[in-house]
Amino acid sequence: MRRNKTALLTRTALAAILLGGSFSIAQAKSPAPADLKKHGTTASDKYEPSLDVMQDQKLKQPGSEPGVPTLTKAEFEKANKIFFQRCAGCHGVLRKGATGKALTTDITRERGLQSLEDFITFGSPAGMPNWGTSGDLSKADINLMARYLMNEPPVPPEFGMAEVRKSWKVIIPVDKRPKKKLNKIDIDNIFSVTLRDSGEIALIDGKSKKILQIIKTGYAVHITRISSSGRYLFVIGRDAKIVMIDLWMKVPGPVAEIKIGAEARSVETSKYKGYEDKYAIAGAYWPPQFVIMDGKTLEPIKIVSTRGMTYDTQEYHPEPRVASILASHYKPEFLVTVKETGHVLMVDYSDIKNLKITDLEAERFLHDGGLDSTGRYFLVAANARNKVAVIDTKKDKLVALIDTKGTKPHPGRGANIIHPKYGPVWITSHLGDDVISLIGTDPKNHKKYAWKVVQTLEGQGGGALFVKSHPKSKHLYVDTTLNPDAELASSVAVFKIKDLTQKEPKYKVLPIGDWSGITEGVRRVVQGEYNKKGDEVWFSVWNGKSQESAIVVVDDKTLKLKHVIKDKRLITPTGKFNVYNTRKDIY
Amino acid sequence: MRRNKTALLTRTALAAILLGGSFSIAQAKSPAPADLKKHGTTASDKYEPSLDVMQDQKLKQPGSEPGVPTLTKAEFEKANKIFFQRCAGCHGVLRKGATGKALTTDITRERGLQSLEDFITFGSPAGMPNWGTSGDLSKADINLMARYLMNEPPVPPEFGMAEVRKSWKVIIPVDKRPKKKLNKIDIDNIFSVTLRDSGEIALIDGKSKKILQIIKTGYAVHITRISSSGRYLFVIGRDAKIVMIDLWMKVPGPVAEIKIGAEARSVETSKYKGYEDKYAIAGAYWPPQFVIMDGKTLEPIKIVSTRGMTYDTQEYHPEPRVASILASHYKPEFLVTVKETGHVLMVDYSDIKNLKITDLEAERFLHDGGLDSTGRYFLVAANARNKVAVIDTKKDKLVALIDTKGTKPHPGRGANIIHPKYGPVWITSHLGDDVISLIGTDPKNHKKYAWKVVQTLEGQGGGALFVKSHPKSKHLYVDTTLNPDAELASSVAVFKIKDLTQKEPKYKVLPIGDWSGITEGVRRVVQGEYNKKGDEVWFSVWNGKSQESAIVVVDDKTLKLKHVIKDKRLITPTGKFNVYNTRKDIY
Repeated sequence: MRRNKTALLTRTALAAILLGGSFSIAQAKSPAPADLKKHGTTASDKYEPSLDVMQDQKLKQPGSEPGVPTLTKAEFEKANKIFFQRCAGCHGVLRKGATGKALTTDITRERGLQSLEDFITFGSPAGMPNWGTSGDLSKADINLMARYLMNEPPVPPEFGMAEVRKSWKVIIPVDKRPKKKLNKIDIDNIFSVTLRDSGEIALIDGKSKKILQIIKTGYAVHITRISSSGRYLFVIGRDAKIVMIDLWMKVPGPVAEIKIGAEARSVETSKYKGYEDKYAIAGAYWPPQFVIMDGKTLEPIKIVSTRGMTYDTQEYHPEPRVASILASHYKPEFLVTVKETGHVLMVDYSDIKNLKITDLEAERFLHDGGLDSTGRYFLVAANARNKVAVIDTKKDKLVALIDTKGTKPHPGRGANIIHPKYGPVWITSHLGDDVISLIGTDPKNHKKYAWKVVQTLEGQGGGALFVKSHPKSKHLYVDTTLNPDAELASSVAVFKIKDLTQKEPKYKVLPIGDWSGITEGVRRVVQGEYNKKGDEVWFSVWNGKSQESAIVVVDDKTLKLKHVIKDKRLITPTGKFNVYNTRKDIY
Repeated sequence: MRRNKTALLTRTALAAILLGGSFSIAQAKSPAPADLKKHGTTASDKYEPSLDVMQDQKLKQPGSEPGVPTLTKAEFEKANKIFFQRCAGCHGVLRKGATGKALTTDITRERGLQSLEDFITFGSPAGMPNWGTSGDLSKADINLMARYLMNEPPVPPEFGMAEVRKSWKVIIPVDKRPKKKLNKIDIDNIFSVTLRDSGEIALIDGKSKKILQIIKTGYAVHITRISSSGRYLFVIGRDAKIVMIDLWMKVPGPVAEIKIGAEARSVETSKYKGYEDKYAIAGAYWPPQFVIMDGKTLEPIKIVSTRGMTYDTQEYHPEPRVASILASHYKPEFLVTVKETGHVLMVDYSDIKNLKITDLEAERFLHDGGLDSTGRYFLVAANARNKVAVIDTKKDKLVALIDTKGTKPHPGRGANIIHPKYGPVWITSHLGDDVISLIGTDPKNHKKYAWKVVQTLEGQGGGALFVKSHPKSKHLYVDTTLNPDAELASSVAVFKIKDLTQKEPKYKVLPIGDWSGITEGVRRVVQGEYNKKGDEVWFSVWNGKSQESAIVVVDDKTLKLKHVIKDKRLITPTGKFNVYNTRKDIY
């Protein structure tokens, strides 16, 4: 049942995802080459990126230099817009390079106008999209961008305490909030669902599957995290705006908000004993910094810049972005991963005035990750290096740096299962190919398998974003959300854990897109999430903004369709965060 | 006996000293107003600053912008030179302001050309020198500088591991060095004497007072520090070059060298039990960073950027320079003071791969300081804030921030005495006035005096650089090196510790300049330093580069002249570092 095979994502969209970026799904055009099933998407096609928040910033045009093409003010502004939409995700705001190559003026001027134009027009096998031949950019635009790149990059403004504080709003003060839960909702079984392109979240009751609330948040919502007690939700968007929601109120809603930078991805709350619900932390892409806040009001307390040296070559990087943040269960610490420089910062929040940070050398291009089943080890992907770094949160050390045997690991928070042969393993899928890697995580009872890829599975294809399981489940789910083949993109592979001892374990395909009953769009299926009990898995069926989307609930035991949640308000649902599983780090 | 009263230092020279900067002494011109005895020097006069190391850097000229005056390449280069010589010390390389005001283009363009020219010409009561009316800068130069300031500042290149490593030279490998001391020198009584303007140090035998060696080091030598064992000397110049000298060799000489940036001030070595002679550390002004090195070879191990947020307003600062560095005796830690942002970094060197830093909020514009008599508390001046911050090196906390009751404290490492009434106190003099402040340092047995200015003494005048005493001494010495009155500049005040209970303790004046027998020059007397036994104090008589200088040795008990060291090779002697006292932090 192959259809919608033509729905492609560009390499840029892929890269944008890789970098935690934002993109919207547009109409497909050209057919997918056959080998794209296995590999990540490579062909370039039109897509309509979301407006980048950077554009809200007034950027100062750098001065002109002899021998360097000049830009008018209007040209400069247009080029900025294109750069932020198409280029910044991979090349960085300051063009120092990350997933994409460095585009500093020493390089671009050496290359020269013609060479830059060619590069932008035709792309490269290394992953640069063919912006010209794809029709995305006109000849005039390409000439503009080539000239733009030969000028110094504009440096976006800083966003320090004055700006952060100015953005801070307490909507309902602590003393005006309920002293006990005022509703009958089983808050531990709420799902906070990202409605990506509408700048909202939906709170959905896990039992009734009814939408409890739609709450306006920030632009391009990225994730939800939950306070240790389960009372507060923290939602962060790409615009670095955090909205804090109180689930104890009669009608759950926002009680505080703040903006911690110009662009961001991550938020987390303190979880160590004695610090429950005490602090929140968020990490920014620009400026490169993280902000520690009061956990009940979002009042900003401390800003720490992440600018510094790359861990390996020890050269200064002006734009080391904060990727994922995770709260330790072993110490009063946040783990802050710094993408471009490859550091994992163990930020001790027990004394914020005298902030202690243990700075672990890990690997460059850190992105996302999660804890092993014991909660002691943090496994985080360095995606552009095809590595997973393992951090011991008890000893504050890097214990391993593992080649994942796949291309561009993207674990989300990963999945933990008990493998019939290798014991506890943590799993990641890949964006760049169909490899699913199982990493041993039990140095105590399965020492020889610990921190090794003990097995790789062949999944449906590349473009996988999330794997999922649950301590009570006998299954492992793998999506292929970004696969160019619409059938793969709209379905999920399920492995039986007990069958993993087979030589080439088979998977069952769940046609989630079909089950949704939606007939339009690509129906990308993304991010399985368990309910509190661990007997249902919820998948988003993610369509374009003007198309119908849905959430499909699967019975974990039978692998049968259990329920479809459809609602006009469910616009572009992506990540779903079950309160209990999220706050307890169950995945 | 008043003479040489006309020898003035400019405010700029004063500021340069404040910032640990470099300057040379030139001929005096105009008479000193009477009140300048008390206060620091204020009138501007010609002086000849040393060539700044920044000029070795190829600076990239920023592009021109509409409405902003342009500079030719030659003009840009000339303006750079003037800026680094005259302005950077106070205003910072990136013009963000420190002792001087911020001169970023938003400010300078708002002011406009005429206003900038006026400001540069006439100066301001707040401390800006009158570069025009003083005759230091021509009208054309002033116009050039005003235009220069309306353009973006050039950003000097980074100096990362590649550059640091390239500069590293092991002159004599460890296995080629002596296994035991091969000379008969009492190395603990050696004085390492900075010969400021010749880029050398003199090693002088404390007993015979003979010069053992003159050793070429870097440009504008700043300080010497000594490895815990006393075997190795580390000499750092303003050019950020470190020369490491082995005192065990038959003829003590350099065994390794390295450059850790473009400009620097501080070097230190690990002193905690188990880490003796293991690591060295140095802090740079540009790039703002510190470098941890192997203590036996200077091999660079880790570079840490100090760029980050100001401790108080929490705004990003691109140029937070490393001021003083001190090795803790209580933990395997270096204390790194960061000037512009006001942080004290407790850098744990027990695991350099997983570097742990406790970041204490102290006060902006940290400069120099030293330990209390127990070695537990570090007292460091925030000179532009007239404060001393007290760090508990055992608990890694700021314990106090003390208003010194004077203007611009400049303690060097300070002086520790047992006050007959207040018990153990630590002392600082001031650059800006004649106040000498005594701070109680014994929270255990003199709790009510701890971390308070318990007494102020009236000294000879402002422009004091160093106070000095010794556990065995009954005296406290205070120089007035930068006082505009040559009689004060060439003499030292001595207080009897037992007389400090008097209401207005009197001091005795030692005419060190006269005692030297030198008749030319200002004969500035600077930095008392004890011999190992603690019964002699050595003072430098610091004259211009082409003039005669000397070291005068005073009998600490009788306060009489004991010896004058004169030698053609003693060019511009300033700091003297007795091996034993320096490595044991006795002051």
